[in-house]
Amino acid sequence: MKAICRVLLLGVCILGKVVAQQDSLMMERIYTASFENGKAYENLRYLTKNIGHRIAGSAKAEKAVLWSKALMEGLAFDRVYLQEVEMPFWDRGEKEEAYIVSTKEPLNILSLGGSVATPPGGLEAEIIEVELLSELRAQGNKVRGKIVFVNKPWDESMVETGIAYGLNSSQRSRGPVEAAKLGAVAYLFRSLSSSPDDDYPHTGGTRYVNDIDSIPALAISPVGANKLSEALKKDSATRIHIVNHSAWKGNVTTHNVIAEWRGTDKPDEIITIGGHIDSWDVGEGAHDNGTGTMGTLDAIRTLMKLDYRPRHTIRLVFYMNEENGVHGALQYGETAKANAERIIAAIESDAGGFAPRGFDIKSSAERVNWIQQHWKPLFEQKFWVSRFLQGSPGVDSGVWGRHFPNTIMFNFRPDPHRYFDIHHTAKDVFEAVDRRELQSGVAAIASLLYLVDQQIDQLP
Amino acid sequence: MKAICRVLLLGVCILGKVVAQQDSLMMERIYTASFENGKAYENLRYLTKNIGHRIAGSAKAEKAVLWSKALMEGLAFDRVYLQEVEMPFWDRGEKEEAYIVSTKEPLNILSLGGSVATPPGGLEAEIIEVELLSELRAQGNKVRGKIVFVNKPWDESMVETGIAYGLNSSQRSRGPVEAAKLGAVAYLFRSLSSSPDDDYPHTGGTRYVNDIDSIPALAISPVGANKLSEALKKDSATRIHIVNHSAWKGNVTTHNVIAEWRGTDKPDEIITIGGHIDSWDVGEGAHDNGTGTMGTLDAIRTLMKLDYRPRHTIRLVFYMNEENGVHGALQYGETAKANAERIIAAIESDAGGFAPRGFDIKSSAERVNWIQQHWKPLFEQKFWVSRFLQGSPGVDSGVWGRHFPNTIMFNFRPDPHRYFDIHHTAKDVFEAVDRRELQSGVAAIASLLYLVDQQIDQLP
Repeated sequence: MKAICRVLLLGVCILGKVVAQQDSLMMERIYTASFENGKAYENLRYLTKNIGHRIAGSAKAEKAVLWSKALMEGLAFDRVYLQEVEMPFWDRGEKEEAYIVSTKEPLNILSLGGSVATPPGGLEAEIIEVELLSELRAQGNKVRGKIVFVNKPWDESMVETGIAYGLNSSQRSRGPVEAAKLGAVAYLFRSLSSSPDDDYPHTGGTRYVNDIDSIPALAISPVGANKLSEALKKDSATRIHIVNHSAWKGNVTTHNVIAEWRGTDKPDEIITIGGHIDSWDVGEGAHDNGTGTMGTLDAIRTLMKLDYRPRHTIRLVFYMNEENGVHGALQYGETAKANAERIIAAIESDAGGFAPRGFDIKSSAERVNWIQQHWKPLFEQKFWVSRFLQGSPGVDSGVWGRHFPNTIMFNFRPDPHRYFDIHHTAKDVFEAVDRRELQSGVAAIASLLYLVDQQIDQLP
Repeated sequence: MKAICRVLLLGVCILGKVVAQQDSLMMERIYTASFENGKAYENLRYLTKNIGHRIAGSAKAEKAVLWSKALMEGLAFDRVYLQEVEMPFWDRGEKEEAYIVSTKEPLNILSLGGSVATPPGGLEAEIIEVELLSELRAQGNKVRGKIVFVNKPWDESMVETGIAYGLNSSQRSRGPVEAAKLGAVAYLFRSLSSSPDDDYPHTGGTRYVNDIDSIPALAISPVGANKLSEALKKDSATRIHIVNHSAWKGNVTTHNVIAEWRGTDKPDEIITIGGHIDSWDVGEGAHDNGTGTMGTLDAIRTLMKLDYRPRHTIRLVFYMNEENGVHGALQYGETAKANAERIIAAIESDAGGFAPRGFDIKSSAERVNWIQQHWKPLFEQKFWVSRFLQGSPGVDSGVWGRHFPNTIMFNFRPDPHRYFDIHHTAKDVFEAVDRRELQSGVAAIASLLYLVDQQIDQLP
């Protein structure tokens, strides 16, 4: 009996090694195909240069939708379709302006997404500067009639810049309401930038609540914030002039773009992969999130070109409106829930197209351990991808995932050093993307997709 | 007895944990200091913009030597000195030119380091194109009087671009001699570039042997190589015209720059750290190797600013002439051997200033395993540095290390995706370096230096 067990065990071990070798060979083919014949970089060039930035609800966003659909229709998908998304449209209007009244020195600002306009000729007021919103309350009546200026420097100390971003991003979203409660006339927020000498303002979403007066809310560049802070040190009665034209323009219908590649074994079990196709209305939305959409599309295209046949249905989703409302992900989730779909896994790419480092995994510690044991060795030494840690899903997957709490979710993690220098700015352009870094990420995502499709049943 | 053992074991475990926590805290301080107050990026700006490229033996190389010495003298080193290095000086002279004779279409070329000049008015000849030098012999007499054109495309399939470089770099160094043996009049080499659409030529070293006639040897851009190959397909008698002015100019005296920070416990045991200060004579020598010199200097400066006191003597070496002769490293090794120095470890940085990924380690598998067990966990999750693999030392350490075969050597490995796009070209400029990536590398190197200094006695 013992002998039989040994033989069986040996058989299992040998089988395991053979499977790992097959996976390794498949991944070599994926990497070679992506580096030699990948199309993500050239598709990204088209998206950024011929369409450009594309805030949800804009004509350019719809142009991106239709072009994406045509791209997908050119591949071997079994079905390509648009999913309608209703959402309120916010428009920046004419360019914002700001200057210090006494010196006429201009300050680089950008309206925060969702902000209301100033009165037509602009507004002019004194400033109340704080690092933290929590300091505002102590100022009491002094806030009334002033512009609240939240000037908290970026915490430079972290390799994982996303944590530094997260430390302060709630002051961007909650700030206008807190300031308005105390009678402020506008809200000025030091941009979330990892570069202390950055003179670009970084936009991003903010929000109001119904029972509080909305006040104009704008981001100021780090250099501008320093200038203004210096001016306030010299003269605490320094006034600035701000003009902002942005406004909500009512509801519009826009779309998620979806393509399905039917599984051979289990067509009813779906692996969702993708990222958001909208961007902020500055720069070209290259790293955020042209690389995520063009990258996930190219990961699937690469598997198709290698004559792969998926066991499960692979569904590519380009979500609309991640940046200011996540209505695309909400719609996707409601539809999937209404249809009682079986979404067994999700992969999202929305952290840039830099050199791939790994995937955060939303699942049990036991499953993450299994992945570290079985998949990480396939990636680590040869392909320089080694982070497989328990973590959060991407924003869109996280939103629709509320209806699918047991779905395992992978969040693509590229190198984090450069992202928050260009994030949500005019600097987020095609030229900031490196071809080899992007195609390396495509290969990492395609490899993960292959492994999930082949081995998800083996997960504990 | 068992109980005592358990208590002792527990004590060791607790002690081990406390030590690891201390190391972890020290590394946090190092990273924070490097990101917030690092000087590598600003020093690199000076080196690249105020001095520029600096081929060994040139006036600019000596300017870099004296400026580096002054930089070191501004820090808390115990001794700063120059080490004389005798070497032959090679000079490019006026700019090279090449064009296709029939169409006058220009081709972007760069003389390979060490090449002789063409006759004063240039030379004109037919081409013999091959992928591999090994194909030349079969061509026999057809090679005589022609320009040998080695047009092997870069192997794009690898994440580790250094391997692709290594696959083909011997054709750069051995090519002119092989071609001259068969009577060729010049040697034209497709640039070692990871970008297929690159129109920059990449230079690099080549060599002659005494008993073979030297012929002019030049690198052609990948785009130029494609153009020329197309022209040859249409007309195999296509001729090109080449003018090259480079020449050897006799021996000069130049310098390694050395600074020592004396150890408190074991001042006679030396940890060497550094990289080469010379560069090729195009671009600004930013990634190759301004980042390696300014980075290792800043790693030490960071430890000094944290009031660290090293146990062993830390010796910073800026080697001269890595690019075309390694005479600096040869001199360093001979001097250290003559002085019977005890060099217990070496750290080299010469692979660019991209996001740090780890260190190749020249040592026994047992020691590498120990490092993976004890040091890798300190770097991996928090600082995104996870490659600690057995491998080759840097070029300079490798050269002087022949006299010190038992010295453990660490070769800094930044992300490899972008390096060979800019390597040895006019594109290797300050703007190609990212501040956060560079300072992250400084922190990784400073952390390793700290661990080596503290724990080298614990290595198996």
